[in-house]
Amino acid sequence: MIEFIKAHGTENDFVVLMDEATQVNLTEERVRHLADRRAGIGGDGVIRIATGDALVSAGVLAELPAGVHGEEWFMDYRNADGSQAEMCGNGVRAFAHVLCRQGKVMVGEKFGIGTRAGRKLVEVHELSGENQEHAIVSVEMGAPEVLGVSTAQVGDMKVAGLGVDMGNPHLAAVVPNLTAQELQELPIDQQVQFDPEFFPAGVNLEVLTPLDDAGAVHMRVHERGVGETRSCGTGTVAAAVSALADAELATGTVTVHVPGGAVQVEVSEDGSILRGPSAIVAWGQTVL
Amino acid sequence: MIEFIKAHGTENDFVVLMDEATQVNLTEERVRHLADRRAGIGGDGVIRIATGDALVSAGVLAELPAGVHGEEWFMDYRNADGSQAEMCGNGVRAFAHVLCRQGKVMVGEKFGIGTRAGRKLVEVHELSGENQEHAIVSVEMGAPEVLGVSTAQVGDMKVAGLGVDMGNPHLAAVVPNLTAQELQELPIDQQVQFDPEFFPAGVNLEVLTPLDDAGAVHMRVHERGVGETRSCGTGTVAAAVSALADAELATGTVTVHVPGGAVQVEVSEDGSILRGPSAIVAWGQTVL
Repeated sequence: MIEFIKAHGTENDFVVLMDEATQVNLTEERVRHLADRRAGIGGDGVIRIATGDALVSAGVLAELPAGVHGEEWFMDYRNADGSQAEMCGNGVRAFAHVLCRQGKVMVGEKFGIGTRAGRKLVEVHELSGENQEHAIVSVEMGAPEVLGVSTAQVGDMKVAGLGVDMGNPHLAAVVPNLTAQELQELPIDQQVQFDPEFFPAGVNLEVLTPLDDAGAVHMRVHERGVGETRSCGTGTVAAAVSALADAELATGTVTVHVPGGAVQVEVSEDGSILRGPSAIVAWGQTVL
Repeated sequence: MIEFIKAHGTENDFVVLMDEATQVNLTEERVRHLADRRAGIGGDGVIRIATGDALVSAGVLAELPAGVHGEEWFMDYRNADGSQAEMCGNGVRAFAHVLCRQGKVMVGEKFGIGTRAGRKLVEVHELSGENQEHAIVSVEMGAPEVLGVSTAQVGDMKVAGLGVDMGNPHLAAVVPNLTAQELQELPIDQQVQFDPEFFPAGVNLEVLTPLDDAGAVHMRVHERGVGETRSCGTGTVAAAVSALADAELATGTVTVHVPGGAVQVEVSEDGSILRGPSAIVAWGQTVL
């Protein structure tokens, strides 16, 4: 039996385990059970919170990833299928929210965390609600690498967009004159065909409206190997880069509306910051 | 903030609220939130446990359904969409399991409960696990009413079977010589076409293997308005009736394997008993 917290960032949802000293033997089977939406608690992923040093001592990490500080908190992220993942832009908000609610970090304090993709800087801007169940968190997502223009087809719809590498590959396609209403009708949930020479490892596809006067876009996303999802952290950054480029801008702040909510993406010359909500839904004990 | 228990019976899963005095204002919106698999805890349904009298006092029930005893526990069942449902054969096991784990009823005690479909007799046969997270529960499901033979099509597959009314309408189709392995390949998740004169209110379709020498069948189910599910309590009873009839038997006990597990159905001359597992997955607090 262990303690858990269920949280979501724009409806990308996670089972969070506060396991400072890495005492839980988090096998693939246990991750799959925790993430099972009917026989377990359910989530898109499972996040263990421990220090980098504790994870190395327990043998979960063979060594600290480059740049990671061992005494800092580390996001041990697992996909619902039990496999390890490097980083999750929405999960990191839930991670920071839980740390702040537990009093491990302060509101307004910028702090470093470890991930398998390296050290990231994070800040909890607000913590609210009777049970501190709401937070606004920002995370530095690194510099988007623009790959150039490519095309794809989703269902019977052809799109052209900007290839963006965020550690994972994206094709973010602005559709000229598309409205938020029309976006709802598009076949984003259907199969994606792409150029395998341009995207040898597959691609996450974002389809979006052009940047409006308020600096906002609406986006839907089809994640590689998953299908349409409610939100994708790195995808919102790729979408912001593409929307800015489409408006002939290199930098700026874009509000990205996704089916699960909205986030703000700040694109600068040397990096990007993803800012958005985290909501804690439930907490208690679960059987492993 | 309220306390919850998440439980499932053969992977038909529920958010259970122990609300003896009916203090929670369980609006449709709150039910939908609790059942939301990403923004809430998630479940196929929400079950409030209160006494019949308390539910009447609070105005949740206009009056006690015929046969229901006001001082007994009542299963206030809601579908994930917020609507009320009369009864749920898998949910009632989770309901009895929680009552027993809380010390409100004893193992081996047959007790009456109220439902919107009337009074049901229930018994917890076993309670096990370090956290009493497993139980075996039986519930009297009433007399199946055989409607006669009808046909349906699911995807590109035509089937013939027995229409069975369990309070809700079923077509339970034994496919001659079908193996459990072959059953996995059938298009049960696809659209169902049926005879609207035979089933004016729609139908739940069960497709199953013939009764084997061990008295077991394998079944998959397509629930009316939902699609394929992991389990359906009334559907397993209809399947048992149909499997027995196919073997030229009117009564008997059938083990019904469903995607989410297995249950035993005892069909007698004047009723049926559904016996199966309940598993408690997690418990704690949730934000309403």
